[in-house]
Amino acid sequence: MAFQSRILILLISLFLFSCNKEASKANMAQEQDNSGHPSLILTKQGVKEIRANLGRIPIFDKTLAATKVEVDAEIQNGFDVPLPKDYSGGYTHETHKKNYVLMQKAGVLYQILQDEKYAKFVKDMLFEYAKEYLKWPIHPKPRSYARGKLFWQCLNDSNWLVYTSQAYDCIYNYLSEDERNTLENDLFRPFADHISKDSPQFFNRVHNHATWGNVAVGMIALAMDDDVLLDRALNGVKDVNFDPSEKDNDGGYIRKEGQKIGFFANVNEPFSPDGYFTEGPYYQRYASYPFLIFAQALENKKPELKVFEYKEGVLLKSVNALLNLSDIDGEFFLLNDSQKGMSVFNSSLIATVDIGYHFGGNDPGLLSIAKMQQEVTLDDAGLSVALGIEAGKAKPFVKKSIELSDGANGDEGAVGILRSGGLELVFKYTAHGLSHGHYDKLSFALFEDGNEVVQDYGMGRFVNIEQKGGGNYLKENKTWARQSIAHNTIVQNEASQFKGKYDIGSKYHANKYVFSVAQDSVQVASAKDENAYPGTKLHRTMVTIRDEDYDNPYVLDIMRVSSDTSNQYDLPFYFLGHIMQADFEYKKLPAPEVLGKSDGYEHLYKEATATVSDGNIKLNWLRNNKFYTYTAVTVNKDEVIFGRIGANDPDFNLRPEQTLILRKKNTKDALYVSTIESHGTYSPVSELAVNAYSHIKQIEVIYNSNEYTAIQVDTNNNKSKVFIISNENNDNEATHKLTINNNVYTWKGPYILTNNK
Amino acid sequence: MAFQSRILILLISLFLFSCNKEASKANMAQEQDNSGHPSLILTKQGVKEIRANLGRIPIFDKTLAATKVEVDAEIQNGFDVPLPKDYSGGYTHETHKKNYVLMQKAGVLYQILQDEKYAKFVKDMLFEYAKEYLKWPIHPKPRSYARGKLFWQCLNDSNWLVYTSQAYDCIYNYLSEDERNTLENDLFRPFADHISKDSPQFFNRVHNHATWGNVAVGMIALAMDDDVLLDRALNGVKDVNFDPSEKDNDGGYIRKEGQKIGFFANVNEPFSPDGYFTEGPYYQRYASYPFLIFAQALENKKPELKVFEYKEGVLLKSVNALLNLSDIDGEFFLLNDSQKGMSVFNSSLIATVDIGYHFGGNDPGLLSIAKMQQEVTLDDAGLSVALGIEAGKAKPFVKKSIELSDGANGDEGAVGILRSGGLELVFKYTAHGLSHGHYDKLSFALFEDGNEVVQDYGMGRFVNIEQKGGGNYLKENKTWARQSIAHNTIVQNEASQFKGKYDIGSKYHANKYVFSVAQDSVQVASAKDENAYPGTKLHRTMVTIRDEDYDNPYVLDIMRVSSDTSNQYDLPFYFLGHIMQADFEYKKLPAPEVLGKSDGYEHLYKEATATVSDGNIKLNWLRNNKFYTYTAVTVNKDEVIFGRIGANDPDFNLRPEQTLILRKKNTKDALYVSTIESHGTYSPVSELAVNAYSHIKQIEVIYNSNEYTAIQVDTNNNKSKVFIISNENNDNEATHKLTINNNVYTWKGPYILTNNK
Repeated sequence: MAFQSRILILLISLFLFSCNKEASKANMAQEQDNSGHPSLILTKQGVKEIRANLGRIPIFDKTLAATKVEVDAEIQNGFDVPLPKDYSGGYTHETHKKNYVLMQKAGVLYQILQDEKYAKFVKDMLFEYAKEYLKWPIHPKPRSYARGKLFWQCLNDSNWLVYTSQAYDCIYNYLSEDERNTLENDLFRPFADHISKDSPQFFNRVHNHATWGNVAVGMIALAMDDDVLLDRALNGVKDVNFDPSEKDNDGGYIRKEGQKIGFFANVNEPFSPDGYFTEGPYYQRYASYPFLIFAQALENKKPELKVFEYKEGVLLKSVNALLNLSDIDGEFFLLNDSQKGMSVFNSSLIATVDIGYHFGGNDPGLLSIAKMQQEVTLDDAGLSVALGIEAGKAKPFVKKSIELSDGANGDEGAVGILRSGGLELVFKYTAHGLSHGHYDKLSFALFEDGNEVVQDYGMGRFVNIEQKGGGNYLKENKTWARQSIAHNTIVQNEASQFKGKYDIGSKYHANKYVFSVAQDSVQVASAKDENAYPGTKLHRTMVTIRDEDYDNPYVLDIMRVSSDTSNQYDLPFYFLGHIMQADFEYKKLPAPEVLGKSDGYEHLYKEATATVSDGNIKLNWLRNNKFYTYTAVTVNKDEVIFGRIGANDPDFNLRPEQTLILRKKNTKDALYVSTIESHGTYSPVSELAVNAYSHIKQIEVIYNSNEYTAIQVDTNNNKSKVFIISNENNDNEATHKLTINNNVYTWKGPYILTNNK
Repeated sequence: MAFQSRILILLISLFLFSCNKEASKANMAQEQDNSGHPSLILTKQGVKEIRANLGRIPIFDKTLAATKVEVDAEIQNGFDVPLPKDYSGGYTHETHKKNYVLMQKAGVLYQILQDEKYAKFVKDMLFEYAKEYLKWPIHPKPRSYARGKLFWQCLNDSNWLVYTSQAYDCIYNYLSEDERNTLENDLFRPFADHISKDSPQFFNRVHNHATWGNVAVGMIALAMDDDVLLDRALNGVKDVNFDPSEKDNDGGYIRKEGQKIGFFANVNEPFSPDGYFTEGPYYQRYASYPFLIFAQALENKKPELKVFEYKEGVLLKSVNALLNLSDIDGEFFLLNDSQKGMSVFNSSLIATVDIGYHFGGNDPGLLSIAKMQQEVTLDDAGLSVALGIEAGKAKPFVKKSIELSDGANGDEGAVGILRSGGLELVFKYTAHGLSHGHYDKLSFALFEDGNEVVQDYGMGRFVNIEQKGGGNYLKENKTWARQSIAHNTIVQNEASQFKGKYDIGSKYHANKYVFSVAQDSVQVASAKDENAYPGTKLHRTMVTIRDEDYDNPYVLDIMRVSSDTSNQYDLPFYFLGHIMQADFEYKKLPAPEVLGKSDGYEHLYKEATATVSDGNIKLNWLRNNKFYTYTAVTVNKDEVIFGRIGANDPDFNLRPEQTLILRKKNTKDALYVSTIESHGTYSPVSELAVNAYSHIKQIEVIYNSNEYTAIQVDTNNNKSKVFIISNENNDNEATHKLTINNNVYTWKGPYILTNNK
């Protein structure tokens, strides 16, 4: 921001403080009154309280002042309502997008500052839209399965209506009845009809698209007090035939047979009882705004619907779930299609956090997130947050280890997050995640201090970067990023899980087995899958172990594979960083060769190979001036492949990052065991390397049967630990007794970590 | 630092303040007295002043308190003087290194705190060394051309003596004459003899090794008041035969015929009159400590030598030069062998900055660097800095565009640094840089906001990371990092400049042509080379241009090649980041192929190729969320190669980064013209791309002769600029007149930038 703007904001803040002392005398104990306007995100009572507090609530005052500067400048500049023609990035797209954001802000400013110039700005723009809307044809760009009128897809038209409804609510009483009738008949109702009745393939779904559509219709319905339209929003367009084989542009099915529709279905189905959104946090972040802004409006206008109590308060739980799906820096974990770098600082998270605080019992942890965001919504929820911060109520939002179930009923697997020291391990054993899902059952990613160390590739897309396929999904998203080999999980016979088919993958989910995090010294997440490869059972157990002699915890990873048939198994390990050393002999190829033909293998180069024997292999690497070591148990004739992403990538769309693949051929049952350590640091300034080597001397499988798997970890401090997991009985109360090498181990519950005898 | 340590430091600071009020009454106006001890880095008068100011000089107090905590803990632990046997990283190496650092610190603590336990610690350790030194053999590790006794190379033995001399000076008066005789006869004199008389191949050189050696002998000579030994330090070991074909382990010649030796020769020859150190800033940083610490000791003890006035004050100028060779974040530019990330925060820069301030006229800019370093030396110089900071004298150290000449007489080329906006362009037209030089005449690197955008690869070495070749130079340093193709400069016929031979490269240097930075809107650095390829003349002109309509300046790069013969020319462009778009059609190879056979080409993969025609090519890429575009003039049948580093790299020692090579075949005279823009930004949080595309519509060569080259740059704001350089006359007073396309251009001086007519 320019210096001048900052000064301006400061002056406005002072002005607000001085001129609103009057309002502060208003009666603050007034009764709640749900009728009239505004009543969506601002209420009449809320406006009074905001005006009474202006100048005393810095984070709110600052946001308000910045908004005023922005809107005043735009009023000065004038607006345009151009004939729609462009894709995103183009002039008409960006202008219509700017318009709805400005209308929402101007509406809010009118209520808070009670200056009619803001109401007039909204009114003038709305009348310009009303004059044109019915005349405009369907948007000329043909790419979408559901084309809008202002934008190339109904999704963006819905965005427009969600924001504009708020603006309309704010200036409702400023307009005459005739004016309202004109706007409602010439603009809002036909607009709502286009994205709903005229686009049931968009509206009647369970999908983030439909959520936006439902909410758009619902918001304008509330603004117009139209209960018929509200019913459409809440329950979908009725009596529409649909083709169950129809798909959207991302390859996702429009709808399953018998599936419920409308807003409540969109809350019920993708959210698990824990508040996990099945598409993953990247899309939850996007969908979070309409879910919560509409819930807020419903709560204000139709409190009898008790939307925040729906499904045992799942919408409020979703706020906590979403925040827990971010790393130490607030960046979201990569689950399914997701772009790296998206974080809790995204603007939609402002409303999410504020609404979560206001309606969700005033969790002081959310105030610390709001403080980091340095912004609040200019409404009742934002006021609550600003008052809470000003009263010094903020407390740190502590992220702990957490398991978030997937599926409408919470019985379709889960995401398990183990947090120990600076490590955050994200273990995925969910359902498919709708049309944005990846074929990566039982995969994981590892973060340390907010940096990805063992990566999930994320999506094959550069959102809104026009140079890369218009900013849309690239073909490599499907051919690479979604394929199993792009993830840290098992690939059988060089074919993706579920044959890489959405129809098949959508039918199944992995299953939780153990999630036990009560002790910091040993935390366990274990899960199973039996459907990724028919006839093959996968069981992965991921453990964080704190050795009292070392600074950092380490990860123990046990992947059991049991199959009816002999197969080739690949387990890739996408370490990020520069290889320092491998303790096994590998041979670099004279030039990279393409690793395979399909299922993502065609995008990998083979750079080096090794054939190893019984024992361990170690890979030591450096990332962000930290030393890491991967130690894996190998058996004779295991193959190691050093691969690199980037083959068959004609436009350099992929990042040329490395992987180590541990390959077992002609094997029925396989056991992959490894550890991942963060053990040392390097400083390029002092040029000192500290603890550059692994602390682990050896890992060994000392027992493996259908019932139990036992791993011994010997460390350089001449200590030895044994971890045993019961493979078939996860009962916490069950007692076990197992003799290994003449040592008797007895314990209660599904696992034990003990010092070696 | 642990919390406990911080508390301890705080308490000690308070203690120092209270118990030294006594000392503050001491007479501060005493006469300077150079006799007696301490007199190297601390003087008797300095100690008095330090003691008088303790508790009032926070940066000094903090450093002192931290040093006390560290040394106290080590005194508690006891010390070891083990029989030498290891390379760096090993126990005996690290222990002897720790010992000299501790002795220096304990000596200083003894003087400042006047607590005899510190003197006793130094004395006990020195006597342990004295007991063993004569008995120890030459160090058993054979790798060095000049083996030490405590360490595998005399270099490290010299480090030991430089530090230990300071400790000896501090406790000199604490020892009896007998004790001093024992130490001097059994330890210091034989130690000094080993690294000098017994190792003339190390001592009698002009090289950073010899600098350490000379200074080590000089420091102990000053501590012992031994003028004979001091003469050896200053002027070398006399009457030693040497073999002019002898080389060190890095392939550098030991010495040239007729070359002067000793400390003054080591100041005179590698430093240009501007204070540029011919090996480059990475090694200057390393050599800076001995140069300046010895200069400080000489100034204190032998002020009649006027060391700081030597060569018109070059040692003080070198401090300014070194700081100017760092980017916005203080990281050094990569010139010759250098590891990325080395910066002004390196400990040797503490002494450099403090001594530079104390003896160099108290430049307030240096205080701001010292503040960033958060540490001072515990001596007279550190006191000066601490007092200056406490008095609020610090001012920003402003880095401007600067040309630093190379060569003892300043006539062997230069480094030209153009700074404009956030851009820092480093253009290299120096001499070879001794044994650490690269074959990269007229190469450049570009930084923006402290991030490298167009890179110099740096060295093929991971300093002190044992996993990578013991932390020493890797063979890829020679086969890749030093070769011409690894740099952003011309390679003729796939052979490195000067045939990649040190003997040849060392004979020549490039020549300055123009360095003109008075106007921020157009800054020009231009240089020539006629020796890299006999029969071929290179002339490169690099310009930063500020277009008033755009936020950022851009770089215009004109490389003229004129040869007696037809050749193939390659000009690589090592952009860092992810390719967003190229505006020409290229074809990715099914799999990468090795680009060539030798001279570094064997380390590059060819990933994609294009044949282009008359016009421009554009490459648009993203780096650190900024968009960049390279636009280059091409002529018909020019080839474009997308390459990647990493071929013939069996141990993954190289970073797999990308390059674009513009290749011209069968060409006598070539003209490469390009622009580099930083024009836009991306946010992964808001997912907004701003100014993602180049602002440059077209660049065109509108005139090119032996006398003049004229480039027209058309921008998207429908403006057009013309830059003309006079190729043969760089006289600032000369007037020129040139007609191009019927437009007459007249100007004074070697170049003009004008709006197109």
